[in-house]
Formats: sequence, C-alpha cells, structure tokens
Amino acid sequence: MGEFDLIQRYFADQIQSANGVELGIGDDCALLNIPPGECLAVSTDTLVSGVHFFPDVEPFSLGYKSLAVNLSDLAAMGATPRWVSLALTLPEANETWLADFAKGFFTVADKHGVSLIGGDTTKGPLSITISVKGTVPPSLAIRRSGAKPGDFIYVSGTLGEAALAVQQRLHQLPLEQSSIQQFRKKLEFPTPRCELGMALRGIATSGLDLSDGLSGDLKHILKASKVSASVELTNLPISAELKQQVTQSQALQLALGGGDDYELCFTANAADHEKVMQIAQDLNIPVTQIGVIQQGEPQIHWLQQGKTVSLAIEGWEHF
Amino acid sequence: MGEFDLIQRYFADQIQSANGVELGIGDDCALLNIPPGECLAVSTDTLVSGVHFFPDVEPFSLGYKSLAVNLSDLAAMGATPRWVSLALTLPEANETWLADFAKGFFTVADKHGVSLIGGDTTKGPLSITISVKGTVPPSLAIRRSGAKPGDFIYVSGTLGEAALAVQQRLHQLPLEQSSIQQFRKKLEFPTPRCELGMALRGIATSGLDLSDGLSGDLKHILKASKVSASVELTNLPISAELKQQVTQSQALQLALGGGDDYELCFTANAADHEKVMQIAQDLNIPVTQIGVIQQGEPQIHWLQQGKTVSLAIEGWEHF
Repeated sequence: MGEFDLIQRYFADQIQSANGVELGIGDDCALLNIPPGECLAVSTDTLVSGVHFFPDVEPFSLGYKSLAVNLSDLAAMGATPRWVSLALTLPEANETWLADFAKGFFTVADKHGVSLIGGDTTKGPLSITISVKGTVPPSLAIRRSGAKPGDFIYVSGTLGEAALAVQQRLHQLPLEQSSIQQFRKKLEFPTPRCELGMALRGIATSGLDLSDGLSGDLKHILKASKVSASVELTNLPISAELKQQVTQSQALQLALGGGDDYELCFTANAADHEKVMQIAQDLNIPVTQIGVIQQGEPQIHWLQQGKTVSLAIEGWEHF
Repeated sequence: MGEFDLIQRYFADQIQSANGVELGIGDDCALLNIPPGECLAVSTDTLVSGVHFFPDVEPFSLGYKSLAVNLSDLAAMGATPRWVSLALTLPEANETWLADFAKGFFTVADKHGVSLIGGDTTKGPLSITISVKGTVPPSLAIRRSGAKPGDFIYVSGTLGEAALAVQQRLHQLPLEQSSIQQFRKKLEFPTPRCELGMALRGIATSGLDLSDGLSGDLKHILKASKVSASVELTNLPISAELKQQVTQSQALQLALGGGDDYELCFTANAADHEKVMQIAQDLNIPVTQIGVIQQGEPQIHWLQQGKTVSLAIEGWEHF
C-alpha cells in the first residue's frame, strides 16, 4: 500500500473546503487564508510511543488525544482553532489501526471545527507530530508575559486525575475500578479548553495550558512576566474522587507535579474576577482562583490556609 | 538536561524578531503576521532514520537536508519562505550531535531568510518533522492542477545523481571516488529552488518538486490537471559525470525513478518559453524543456528521438 493511498483513504476524504482553506491536501503545500486583522498562531508537538503514551494504547484514544493536546496550546493563546497538519510515523500500514486512529482524530477535529490540511505518513517507530494552526487578533492573544502584580491566578477543571491514571498503570495501585475508569478517561480524552481561551481574550493577562504539572508550568508565566506568585493549596481544584483514593500529600503531588491535565492556567486583573466567573458559568467549565501574582523573583510561594509551607515538586522533563 | 534547556541552547538564540514574527519560541504558540493580500503556504515532512536517511549520516548534513527538502515544497508553490517549526526526536541529548545538526539547519535557514518559530524536542528513535511556512498571493501560487495541453514541461538542474549516491552506498558500486563525492553532495546538500519558484509566479501553469523521481512525480501533475504528457528522453538533463559512471539504461532509471533530486518540474505556456529561459539565465539555474503537455489520460508517453518507447519505471513508495 503506497504512502499516497494511505493518506487518501483515511484522511483526504475528510478535508473541508470551507474554513479558509484555499487549497487542501494533495499539492506541495496547503494554502490557507487568514482572516483580516488576525495573525496566525502555530503550535507543534510530538508524541512518541513509550515516552508520551503507552505502546499498547487504543488507536482511537491516541488519535483523539494527540489532536486534543495540541488544540490545548491554541486554547491557551485564545486563538480560534482552524487547521491541523498530521505527520504520522508507523511501523506498518495496519488498516484497522489507522481507521481507529483517524476516527479518534476526527472526533476532536469535527468538534472544534478544525480542518486537516496536510501532513506526511512515513514508515518507522510509532510517533505522531501534529502542528495546529489558529488565528487571533495579535493584540488579544493571551501570552505568558502579561501577568501583573495583584492579578488573580486561575485554573480550569480539576487537577491530578490524569497523573494518577499514569501512576496506576505504572505501579498497579490498588484503586477502585470505577475511579480508575474515570481517571483513565481524563488521561486518554483530555478536553482542550478552546471556548474558554477564546472567551478570555482581552480579560486574561497571561495564560498557558497545564501539560507538565501546575508547579512547573506556572513558573513559565512567572519567568516570562517577571513576577512572583502565591498559591493557596487548599484552593487547588482536586476532585472528591481523587481525594478518596490517595493521601492528601499524594493528591498535592499529583495536582502540582503530575502533568497531563491540559487545563488552562491564567491570570486576570482582580477587578475582572466577576467577568471571569461569569464566563466560566456561561461555558459550564469550572474555573477556580488559586492564588495571586506578586512582585518579586519568579517563584511560587505555597500557602496552606494562609501560612507558608515548603514543597518539593518538579514538573515533567524529557531526557 | 531538560527539554527546555535543549531547545533554548541550540535554537532559541537564533530566533529573529523580524520577518513577520509577532511572537517566537517560548509561548504556547508562535504568532505570525501574514502580508496583506497573501495567503499562508504550509508543508510538513517527516524524515525517519533508516528510511529517509542512513542512520550514520553526519548531523550537519541531516540538519541541512531536512530543512532544504521542506523548503523545496515552498519553492514548488512559488511561495516566499518565511518560517519553520522543528520537531526533533532523539534517542539521547547528545550535545555535539545537536550543535552540528543546528549548524546545518541554520545554514539553510539563514540562506533563505527563514525564521525558526517553534517546535518540540522529545526522546525517542531519531526522526525529524519539519513544517515550513511561506506566503504567496493565492492567485499566483503554482498548483499541480493548472497544466494545459500545449504547455511545455521543464525541469531545473540535473537528475539522477542523488539516486546514484544512494545506490553506491547500498551496493558499493565501483565508481570513481571524485564522482562519488559529487553525487553524495547532491544527495546530502540539495538546493531548494526557492528563487526559481518565486520568479515563475504568473508564468508556470503548474509545478511540483521532484522528491520521488520524475516518472512518478510528473504523474501527480497529469492527474491533478487531467492531461497527458510526452517526454523526450534525449532531452532529460543528465550530467556528463552520471553518464560516465553508468550505462544509458541505468542513467534513465536513476533520472526517472530514483528520487531525491529536489529539482522543480513545471509547465508553462509555449508562448512563455523565452521568459522561462530568461529567468533561468538571470538566476543562473539550468532549466531544460523535456516535453509537452497533451490532451488525454494522465499518462507519460516516453519518446526516444521522437519515437515512442516503453519504460517500466516506478517512483519511490514507503511501506
């Protein structure tokens, strides 16, 4: 089966001609029209078998997650998701696998109105590189560098459940079966917060998505914005299910250092607190204020009911 | 060494803030400004160790070639090269290897005014996915679908030398050492024909770049344009060095089915022949007319001094 047949059979049929696609798959390049007054937002991520996902992962969930986590980067920027390129490297041209992968991929693409505009299918060890493209008026893009002292710090959704699913898988933790299912769903089918990101344009002063754990990721905002932060641990959105399954200390470790949450962490002027809460309510997405931006070195001061505590937590690093 | 350090040390320093880059590496997305009246041209390619390059390839030439072959797709479209995302998967964080790879990569990037705007560095089996981005007025983009009966067919440069370098490497062919060096240079350091592609805007009626061999690649134009072609074999640009090293039949096989040429193949109205030749002369790039587009099924009719001959040649297919 040839490279071109593979792409054609599972992907090219799905191409939409709308959505600003001047020319889709099948030429040397795709041609894309950017709406006037907006700029292009691009993010690229690679997922490698055995590093970013378990080698025996279901192809449906792999297709789903690989696009979802990339859209999460557009969400963090407040960009409207529009297009995606998919570079798929496979050990063999397994049709069943490809069909399931495509099904998962297009479930997310269709939900967010994203058009596949190109890519590459090659033979080799399983890995997936996805480049998502969106558009946003440059002045409204949510960058990491805009947090100001006094801004409130927020996160969407709940933290730590996906990380517990990873730990359970690695170490066979004795968890309740129904909880395992719930945590696995968080790990395998993360929800990119695109609607939230777009709604926060002009309100969020900075933001990013939580891929490597709040502790490490928030520091990226602090460094880029040259500010400090204090975070109240009792305010962290940790689900009742997670609290039931692990100790309080383990829950914190998972929520702060675990990764794979793909929730948004953002800051906004304290005066906009009501607006933020209204957006959360309108979209039916939980948003929790967890701390405050302060002047100072790019460090996080952890508080437990207002009192400083010391924590040793590190984010996820490759290599 | 952390993922972020890796990217920062070898790549982030090279970021240019000019070239329409509103926001470069270091946020969730890069933000790029598209010139008014132009659209975005995007192409993504993956290079896998052992499939697209020999595992012991010099990292400098790998960095060079991986960007060059992607820019070749922009050249084929007539797009101005502007930005590139690099997703690099490496078995280990080898600093010497990375420094050499980066040197090769930026040699090409600097030559063509391309800014690195993001990417990903992950641990895993060696592979490289590059997504290049350029801009072009949509009405002037050179597509595969515009060839018309009567158009002349052209190729740039010479064909088959890179393919012979691959064969020599695989089968230890008894070639002259100086020729081997020359052919290897063609294989490892292909020249993306960006200037030629841009100069052909409004003149080329169709075009693509030759990655898998003229025989298979030209058929993509014929299929997209719903036309036929006749190609005169004696007109194929085959270098004297190649002719000296192999039989006439082998030379044809290499030139038509070998791949890795990264020359442009394009069509133009016969009335524009002088314009095409003038552009070639101005840019000092050899351009040769090799055939004519005709009405009919998407097939190539091979001619030898005007007489139809039959050839069994297939392009390069993965899987």
